[in-house]
Amino acid sequence: MGKNFNFNYAFVFYDVNEKRVNKVFKVCKKYFHHHQNSVFRGAITTSKMIKLKSELNKIIKDKDFVTIIKLMNDSCFEEDTLGINENNTEDLIL
Amino acid sequence: MGKNFNFNYAFVFYDVNEKRVNKVFKVCKKYFHHHQNSVFRGAITTSKMIKLKSELNKIIKDKDFVTIIKLMNDSCFEEDTLGINENNTEDLIL
Repeated sequence: MGKNFNFNYAFVFYDVNEKRVNKVFKVCKKYFHHHQNSVFRGAITTSKMIKLKSELNKIIKDKDFVTIIKLMNDSCFEEDTLGINENNTEDLIL
Repeated sequence: MGKNFNFNYAFVFYDVNEKRVNKVFKVCKKYFHHHQNSVFRGAITTSKMIKLKSELNKIIKDKDFVTIIKLMNDSCFEEDTLGINENNTEDLIL
């Protein structure tokens, strides 16, 4: 069955038509923190990941696409920020 | 000195003013594949990472910011794509 890791943290980026971008944003916002532009991130369980993908698959079409990068947890990567990420003050976006 | 892993793979996302977005795009393109919108990715050495950051720091200002997620290699994460990523046919973007 191949490797069987638990992935508990994810980054999500999307490139979707502007007609559907608000819908995709709202779905991602239910599960993650908004990080930047079309990038979300956060801890997520396997069952919530399945729900997220199901919700997104109902919205996207044509050339839309969404990438989900799954990691074991938030300590298996390192992060550098250049400039100031004001979103890190949490949820100023409405 | 803390943990001393080698990070050889990175994702880069940016949120920069449109006046500078082309410059940032061009710098990222020197080091990475363009994945989507303002997302780049690829294998990178530590010395190239230092050069990348130096070049980006000379361009960005004001509220611009760039996030670099560093991973040990391209096998320490899993990836799901919903929809079709036409960029995976490589460098159709000019």
